Amino acid sequence: MRADIITIGDEILIGQVVDTNATYLGKTLNNIGIEVRQIHSISDNKEAILDAFATAQDQVDLVVMTGGLGPTKDDITKHTLCAYFDDTLAFYPDVMAHIDELFRKYVKAPVNDLNRGQAMLPSSCTQLFNAHGTAMGMWMQKEKTVFVSLPGVPFEMKHLVQEKLIPLIKATFSLPARVHKTMMTYGLGESIIAEKISDWEAALPQHIKLAYLPNLGRVRLRLSASGTDEAVLHQEIDALFADLYPLIGDYIKGFESEQPIEMQIGTVLTQKGWTLATAESCTGGALAALFTQHPGASTFFRGSVVSYATEVKQQLLGVQQQDIERHTVVSEPVALSMAKGVIRQTGAHVAIATTGNFGPTQGEADVEIGTVVIAIIAPNIEYVETFIFGKHRERNLRKTLNKALELLHNKLASEL
Amino acid sequence: MRADIITIGDEILIGQVVDTNATYLGKTLNNIGIEVRQIHSISDNKEAILDAFATAQDQVDLVVMTGGLGPTKDDITKHTLCAYFDDTLAFYPDVMAHIDELFRKYVKAPVNDLNRGQAMLPSSCTQLFNAHGTAMGMWMQKEKTVFVSLPGVPFEMKHLVQEKLIPLIKATFSLPARVHKTMMTYGLGESIIAEKISDWEAALPQHIKLAYLPNLGRVRLRLSASGTDEAVLHQEIDALFADLYPLIGDYIKGFESEQPIEMQIGTVLTQKGWTLATAESCTGGALAALFTQHPGASTFFRGSVVSYATEVKQQLLGVQQQDIERHTVVSEPVALSMAKGVIRQTGAHVAIATTGNFGPTQGEADVEIGTVVIAIIAPNIEYVETFIFGKHRERNLRKTLNKALELLHNKLASEL
Repeated sequence: MRADIITIGDEILIGQVVDTNATYLGKTLNNIGIEVRQIHSISDNKEAILDAFATAQDQVDLVVMTGGLGPTKDDITKHTLCAYFDDTLAFYPDVMAHIDELFRKYVKAPVNDLNRGQAMLPSSCTQLFNAHGTAMGMWMQKEKTVFVSLPGVPFEMKHLVQEKLIPLIKATFSLPARVHKTMMTYGLGESIIAEKISDWEAALPQHIKLAYLPNLGRVRLRLSASGTDEAVLHQEIDALFADLYPLIGDYIKGFESEQPIEMQIGTVLTQKGWTLATAESCTGGALAALFTQHPGASTFFRGSVVSYATEVKQQLLGVQQQDIERHTVVSEPVALSMAKGVIRQTGAHVAIATTGNFGPTQGEADVEIGTVVIAIIAPNIEYVETFIFGKHRERNLRKTLNKALELLHNKLASEL
Repeated sequence: MRADIITIGDEILIGQVVDTNATYLGKTLNNIGIEVRQIHSISDNKEAILDAFATAQDQVDLVVMTGGLGPTKDDITKHTLCAYFDDTLAFYPDVMAHIDELFRKYVKAPVNDLNRGQAMLPSSCTQLFNAHGTAMGMWMQKEKTVFVSLPGVPFEMKHLVQEKLIPLIKATFSLPARVHKTMMTYGLGESIIAEKISDWEAALPQHIKLAYLPNLGRVRLRLSASGTDEAVLHQEIDALFADLYPLIGDYIKGFESEQPIEMQIGTVLTQKGWTLATAESCTGGALAALFTQHPGASTFFRGSVVSYATEVKQQLLGVQQQDIERHTVVSEPVALSMAKGVIRQTGAHVAIATTGNFGPTQGEADVEIGTVVIAIIAPNIEYVETFIFGKHRERNLRKTLNKALELLHNKLASEL
């Protein structure tokens, strides 16, 4: 079964918003076994939408579109659906009651004519009721192709997909079983991996696809299988991945789990009964933010001292003046002092510290731009290492965060 | 002048990567006066690419595509260009020398056959030399349409666009003048603004377009003008925006500048000779990370105490046990104590503190999920306010960060 995704909105074409709706829809459809043929981002005008419909009609089973609904878009998608399906708009009293309710509770302003128009939908559509907003989803079929329209607000769109669209797709179409699994590798470039595993890759069966996903020091290898029996697909994928160990085993760091690496670290810490703190200079709070973005982080994360200024390193973390003078603030003795200092200050069992210069200018420490020192202190661990990443500030931040999480995960895993 | 953007890669269609290349290209082309007709994300196979070429041929002046280059993609884009242009691949010795050089310096491994293949390009193409990678850009013209192929690695693609593609576009096509300006509003919903300014919007001239960009508590209004004289367009846009003050003046918070709000705050602080620190509970380091992501933040940003655990609030920030017992950790007295504590600890002149419960569970403080307290302390300011945002953790974080920056900016601006 194949689908097109259409995202409607000039704001996408002029690059003012990143089209995360298309990413979400692509992932969601793929996960339930629907092959996405293309993503088509178009202007919010009738001709562009009709053109996109024409390229999809009878070529795919399903078209999922977002955007072009809502008062300030002039509800262009709805009017275009009416034109394409030779239909007219009808008044839906239940939608009107819902809009009235939302305005009374949240907007605290009278419903205006623009909002009242949102209770008008094509008369022949199957309504996908949007409990979280005023723009409803719509499902309409022409010959062998189903056209689904969803609001562009990501929060509302995602709810509608999960609560309404997926159940309706599963009830309407018969879908294959799908299994995806991703292996993490560190330390080899994409082309070198490709060369080492080329025979293995060439021998992959037709129903199993490989994707290389390189990203700043790691390459993820993803296998996606389609078939009729999910358990069989799992076995096939596991057997294929097992064959990679003789080829690139030294670089494999396990499988990507549903759990992000921050929370894998949290799980290990919780098993040991340990808590974590961070002492951050160059990462400036971003490392703490990676942990605290997840619900449940408070069970193991104590806090962080972001010591951006040198005096804060000294006063709050106890870094010694003589270490700074002798080694500069970007040095292994300073990173170790920072980690020990934050343990003293927060009572955590484990600490990770970062100090470095991400560029673009040299800064007060006389070190090469891109130099980063990471230190880890835990009950049986005292570890520090210096890295030289590159010249690009934003990439240096992301490389440092990736490396810090990788090191902390490895060090803690070796303690289990 | 009109363009299509084509992004090639199954990883986009299955939602494994967000297509930020399309966003970047859309913004860049739009800024130099090229109207993007559509963004087409397609599979990395020859038929899909040829189909996309066919829909663009003679309909647009320019096609910019990314991806489908590189060893593990089987260089599908290059082979498809050869098929479409009835051309063959030729060996480019300068490219080979460059690949050898990159491998010697960075990869520290011998060049393999896959990489050697990257020195083969269509014989009739104009080469866009990629100094930062092994996949070259290509420029080829068929009848009235120019086809440009760029590598998919964002870092390399952006360099090629800035250094090679834009100069070549400007030398080849005659482009109109373009001006964009964005006004920030806070506190009114999109549909209410639309109603209040509907007459103004209806009277906009044909060559000036309005976009509404709503985002968690603020709506940005963007005017984009095309014409022949940039200075005239600036005047027209400024006059149009001036007409909005009588309509929605109370909600306008100035114009979006090129400088992000964090650095606008930094500029004000530097003017006053003040420094900043943050004391963060619910934001967990994310507020500090917003400041420290920018080069130059060290001139005004001292540091942060992320006091995720209650004991860290007490020990490091001097929050009193009795305030916690009487008011809970999510309270105005605690937020004020945190802000004062981080000033004591870091020597900063200004502090902003956050404490709250983002959900999804109730937590130790007996407050409604979504409750957030923000406090600001500065030489003449002692300010604290409680907000109730919503139930969604990630949105609560972003709303809190937006609100904290907005408040800090407003309070400091009132001091100037």
